[in-house]
Formats: sequence, C-alpha cells, structure tokens
Amino acid sequence: MTEVAGISADVLRSYIERIERLEEEKAGIAANIREVFAEAKGNGFDTKVMRQLIKLRRMEPQDVAEQDDLLDVYKRALGMPLS
Amino acid sequence: MTEVAGISADVLRSYIERIERLEEEKAGIAANIREVFAEAKGNGFDTKVMRQLIKLRRMEPQDVAEQDDLLDVYKRALGMPLS
Amino acid sequence: MTEVAGISADVLRSYIERIERLEEEKAGIAANIREVFAEAKGNGFDTKVMRQLIKLRRMEPQDVAEQDDLLDVYKRALGMPLS
Amino acid sequence: MTEVAGISADVLRSYIERIERLEEEKAGIAANIREVFAEAKGNGFDTKVMRQLIKLRRMEPQDVAEQDDLLDVYKRALGMPLS
Repeated sequence: MTEVAGISADVLRSYIERIERLEEEKAGIAANIREVFAEAKGNGFDTKVMRQLIKLRRMEPQDVAEQDDLLDVYKRALGMPLS
Repeated sequence: MTEVAGISADVLRSYIERIERLEEEKAGIAANIREVFAEAKGNGFDTKVMRQLIKLRRMEPQDVAEQDDLLDVYKRALGMPLS
Repeated sequence: MTEVAGISADVLRSYIERIERLEEEKAGIAANIREVFAEAKGNGFDTKVMRQLIKLRRMEPQDVAEQDDLLDVYKRALGMPLS
Repeated sequence: MTEVAGISADVLRSYIERIERLEEEKAGIAANIREVFAEAKGNGFDTKVMRQLIKLRRMEPQDVAEQDDLLDVYKRALGMPLS
C-alpha cells in the first residue's frame, strides 16, 4: 500500500471514489424526482400541493390531526379565517 | 488609494467589512428570533404550529383558501382523512 | 386577557408579531448584503472568491493553516495539482 | 379511470407513489454517504478536508487555479497570511 505523507493513498482514494459514485447516484435520483414533478405539472397537477400531500403522508395521521386542530385554535386566537 | 496586484485594497476591504458587519447583525437577529420561539415554547405554545401560522399570514388569504381546497381534493383522491 | 380555546390570544399575538418584525429586519439585512455583493461585482470583484475570503476570516488562522496543509497532503495522495 | 373532483385519482396516486419511492432511494443513498464519511473518520481521515477535496475534483483544474490565484491576491490586499 502506497503511503503519501503518512496516509494510505489507496484507502483515501477508495473513500473518495465511493462517495463520488454515491453523490452521482443521488444527483440522478434528484433529477428523476424533478422529472416526475414536471410531468405531473404538465398534466395539470399543482406540484406545491403535491409536496404538502407527500409531507402529510410521511406523518402519523394522529399527529396531522392534532397539528391541524392546534393551528385552528391559533388562527381563531388571531382572528384569521379557518380553512 | 493603495493598489495590490492591480486591485484597490481599500475598496475591497470596505466591501468585506460592510458585509461582515451585516452578517453579524443578521446572526444577532436570527438569535433573537430563536429566543422568542424558545420563550413561547416555555410558555406552552407549539413552535412548529406557530411557524405554520406565520407562513400562512405571509400568504394572500385567497391563495391559502385555494391551496387548502386543492389539498382536500388530492386527499380525497388518495383516500386520506380530511382535516 | 382574552382567552381563546384556553390560550391567551394576546400573548400568542405578541410572540407572532415580534417574530414577524424580526423576520422582516432579517430579510432587509439579507437584501443589503446582496446589494453590497452586487456593487462589488459591478466594480470588478469576484464575489465567489470574496465569500471564500470572508469564510477564512471567520476561522482561526492556525486552523486555516492546518486545513490547507492537510488538503495538500490529500491532493498529493490522489495525484492532484497543488495550489 | 376513477375521477375524484375532476382529477384522475389513479394518475395522481401514481405520481405520488413514484416520488415517494424515489425519495426513499435518495434518503438511502444519503445514509450510505454518511456511513462512508463515518468510516473514513474512524480511520483517521478529516472529513471536512475530504469534502473540500471532493468539491475541488468536481471543478475544472484551470478554474481551481484561477480561483486560488485570485484568493491569494485578495488575501494580500487585506494583509492576510497566504496559504
């Protein structure tokens, strides 16, 4: 194993290349996600509302319900229109 | 005006120092915001819901209403409970 | 003090309005920072390099030196050109 | 195709589920990247410097050289130690 300035060049290179491959894959998937949203938008769907929906689906239904209830309480307290 | 390598050192220094002062002010205000949220939390308020409320207050009421309506349409389409 | 659904509406309103004022101030300062960078750019300075410089000025000189040395070691290990 | 409130429920569901699968894959890869960095750190490598290295490898060597030169010019202008 080649050592450069006390570190193993091969080991460092291996870490760096693994990370670079993973970063590339991640960027590819992020591009795929953007494409699905673009396709949905092209078919008339509202991507902002789709993002809200996806966020809600990740949460426990009970947590969503509690948060919505509390939001209504706060809105009423400030005299804002309820949804 | 002192020139270093063809640029005006004084002008560069002035820009950098103005930005650093502004960055410091900005960090101070961000700290103040965190303190108000911490105080609100200490008094029993839910800061996550407060953030939602603040976001809604920045939007036009009509836009909020339209977005809520569409979210309900999408939820119904996916068989999710309505809020 | 008016209570709405068991919370003090006045206290909540006060927190929300304090945060909104602070957020507004913060946005104003962020706009000022962008303006200084735009002015610097208009006078021929490279704003990307200015940002690097500002980042370095926030660090301890010794930490910068150690990091630069290590970066050179890693570059040499991977056969990259040194700066 | 089932229509709910004028939109195709099946089409919406298909978009949402494709995005959710992709988001899950992306999160898995991000976790893998964190693991490689953790392993590298456990073997004595400095992950902050590794990140700098990866950033530099993504740039054109000539752009890196130009940026480094300009950074040195700016440092000299402000009387900062050169790397």
